[in-house]
Amino acid sequence: MDVSAHSLIEELKEFLRSDQISTNETILERHSKDESYHRNSFPDLVVFPETTQEVSGIVQIADRTETPIIPFGLGTSLEGHVIPYDKGMTIDFSMMDQILEIKENDFLVKVQPGVTRSQLNKALKKYGLFFSVDPGADATLGGMASTNASGTTSVKYGVMKDQVHDLQIVHPDGEVIHTGNSARKSSSGYDLNRLYVGSEGTLGCITELTLRVYGIPEHIMAARATFSSLNDAVNAVVAILQSGLSIARVELVDEDSIRQVNRFSETNFSEKTSLFLEFHGNEAGLKSDLSFMEDIVKDYNCEDLQYEHDHASRNKLWEARHNLAYAYVHGFPGRKLMVTDVCVPISQLGSAISYGRELMEKCRLTGGILGHVGDGNYHALLMIDMQDKDEVKRAEDFNEWIVKDALQRGGTSTGEHGVGFGKMKYQEQEHGAALEVMKKIKSSLDPKGIMNPNKIFQRKVST
Amino acid sequence: MDVSAHSLIEELKEFLRSDQISTNETILERHSKDESYHRNSFPDLVVFPETTQEVSGIVQIADRTETPIIPFGLGTSLEGHVIPYDKGMTIDFSMMDQILEIKENDFLVKVQPGVTRSQLNKALKKYGLFFSVDPGADATLGGMASTNASGTTSVKYGVMKDQVHDLQIVHPDGEVIHTGNSARKSSSGYDLNRLYVGSEGTLGCITELTLRVYGIPEHIMAARATFSSLNDAVNAVVAILQSGLSIARVELVDEDSIRQVNRFSETNFSEKTSLFLEFHGNEAGLKSDLSFMEDIVKDYNCEDLQYEHDHASRNKLWEARHNLAYAYVHGFPGRKLMVTDVCVPISQLGSAISYGRELMEKCRLTGGILGHVGDGNYHALLMIDMQDKDEVKRAEDFNEWIVKDALQRGGTSTGEHGVGFGKMKYQEQEHGAALEVMKKIKSSLDPKGIMNPNKIFQRKVST
Repeated sequence: MDVSAHSLIEELKEFLRSDQISTNETILERHSKDESYHRNSFPDLVVFPETTQEVSGIVQIADRTETPIIPFGLGTSLEGHVIPYDKGMTIDFSMMDQILEIKENDFLVKVQPGVTRSQLNKALKKYGLFFSVDPGADATLGGMASTNASGTTSVKYGVMKDQVHDLQIVHPDGEVIHTGNSARKSSSGYDLNRLYVGSEGTLGCITELTLRVYGIPEHIMAARATFSSLNDAVNAVVAILQSGLSIARVELVDEDSIRQVNRFSETNFSEKTSLFLEFHGNEAGLKSDLSFMEDIVKDYNCEDLQYEHDHASRNKLWEARHNLAYAYVHGFPGRKLMVTDVCVPISQLGSAISYGRELMEKCRLTGGILGHVGDGNYHALLMIDMQDKDEVKRAEDFNEWIVKDALQRGGTSTGEHGVGFGKMKYQEQEHGAALEVMKKIKSSLDPKGIMNPNKIFQRKVST
Repeated sequence: MDVSAHSLIEELKEFLRSDQISTNETILERHSKDESYHRNSFPDLVVFPETTQEVSGIVQIADRTETPIIPFGLGTSLEGHVIPYDKGMTIDFSMMDQILEIKENDFLVKVQPGVTRSQLNKALKKYGLFFSVDPGADATLGGMASTNASGTTSVKYGVMKDQVHDLQIVHPDGEVIHTGNSARKSSSGYDLNRLYVGSEGTLGCITELTLRVYGIPEHIMAARATFSSLNDAVNAVVAILQSGLSIARVELVDEDSIRQVNRFSETNFSEKTSLFLEFHGNEAGLKSDLSFMEDIVKDYNCEDLQYEHDHASRNKLWEARHNLAYAYVHGFPGRKLMVTDVCVPISQLGSAISYGRELMEKCRLTGGILGHVGDGNYHALLMIDMQDKDEVKRAEDFNEWIVKDALQRGGTSTGEHGVGFGKMKYQEQEHGAALEVMKKIKSSLDPKGIMNPNKIFQRKVST
């Protein structure tokens, strides 16, 4: 940064109120970290814009002074995305939390980036609509777009990339652009929507999102299936997918994780490796799907199949699943969360998870295996004692081996959490020469490297 | 171009056989045009590579000599994408037509760019799988990825962008990169898959594609519904979409178009404005969906509903739909095809089509209205007498008004045909400041502007 925080603040005060600018230690601390094990680092200051114009003004100052900008939603990311390793200005979008428009006939909503997924779903309910992407955290939609988040329903409805129709972006020079439109499809020019979704704040600030929403299904049925072996559970999922059954959710939760769920969410689920399943459709079609599913899980030695018949018990099931990471954090006070996030081709899922399970024991690490197995995306959720250098080293090695294994299987280092700081070191191995293409795009759109530096790529030292 | 065709050929002969290089007048003519009204222009020469290495060699020569490269599939595009307005070398991918791998358990296939959609579907059938994207033409998959093609099933299965998991790309400097992986989802780095899909050969040559395929549905039911008014037909579609019914295909074919269909495809369809519909699912679910659909179309004054019960009659229906553009071309010898391709939000579809229909009459143009109305994408298919300057002018004005109307409604100038040469003039109006972002990406990845120049953007004159 070429200028002091003090002179930045003077410039900011020309269009922001003083309560929109903070150098308060508590505020800086809250913006120094995410929910993961990554070491924290304080920004120089935090700003709280209320309009796109204000964001543009902030970014113009940053451009002129070559000050790093870190867009911040709720800080629920897991790879250090919002940590200001290069200091600079954190833009906190919590004051931009308005649902601007619900176009129910077009199945579209327009929101500001600080709206959370649960806030949106609450507003959509009275229209018979819902927003499908549901990561564990009640994250902001701006943050979810930035990391291309997904969730339990992605096997049916897709990931953030599939929901974003248009973004309003404040470009690194302060210019405001739109990346899309309100049509269902377009072949007009380069797909900027999908370039900005998942770009983790490294290309600009998201100040508005137009998102696809769905009608709440006519009938929903959820179930828990337990298995005595992890292999059987995974193979049942592969068989369900290959049968062509239209499944809406299928989550793997291993024995250790079920124990954490029961403790934290006060559920009484059988403490066995489980699949949490859900099907959407019309009543007759659903009945036929469920009977087919029952046949398949029986073939894979399912020990018990419990349906969650009513709305309340279904909600309880998915809330427990969403809170799983918090259950672990709560269960291991003083420890930090490290989550692997690889995604592999479906045919590789069984052997990849077996490898992960064995490696976790070999590395003497505490945690569980779970994941959105319908997409081939599984997580090893580890609770690390950051004071124990040897344990930290074992956990980091484990993470690296899991990534290497996934890449060898034709998969990816991150299915949904994003690269941030934590997965930066795997980018060259994963993308090879394509990483240079990404770097060229970054340099051409953010030549000064001010947008969320040291995320995805190392910051280019300005010359 | 800095060098003569002769010296290019000498260089190419170092690694290509002479039958892989052509300056034959008939061959040049075949590569001078697409299936539309756009004026033709000859390349200097056409090359027929058989391997990625050969493509890389060709591109390296083009890079060194600043020779334009035009990637060519089968020449079925509709906006002049493959016309060498700047001359140079056309790379014809017809010799790269191998299906490299069918990974049935992962629902993935790996193909070379010259494979056509029907060739792929023929190979997939014995695995119980199909490839979903079906534009009217039996285009190559490389071409379909380049324009982000879609088709009748996109309302359920999505467009090309939703099917591409990985591309092998020969970059404008000859380097070979991969844009993705074989996992179902990824949040690792910028989404190069979706950047290259729809980039119309302006960023590199596609030399391999990994595509998602689907299981052939357990049960399929197709139907034709006729209406006495275009409005009723369109409103019935909007109501079906809003009901949440899971529809797999819904195509609008107006009265004029049905007449062309009957003449060309020897069908005997009732010559009324029609919807061609298809539903996929299990037997019980389908039955319930169809009865719901029947109620809806009745509400919109459907005059007649005919089911196509067997495989053969269903195939006949969709073949007739796919051949509709050819039916028009055949029905109006000597005239050229101009097709508008706007896509609007669903709630705008009825009034947009009414506007288009009235405007077509006002402009005294010959043709019909049809389209993938489930996506809000409709086409006015015009047959133009290119000798009649006044008619050409009226058609061009019509096209421009239709585009302006769609943009005002929050839509796009092209839902599936792409920009090519024909829609270049609307890009600034459609994208505003975002067009500059696209141009920066183009310049950073293809600094010499050799990749398919004068498509999407005007060629930057080298300085």
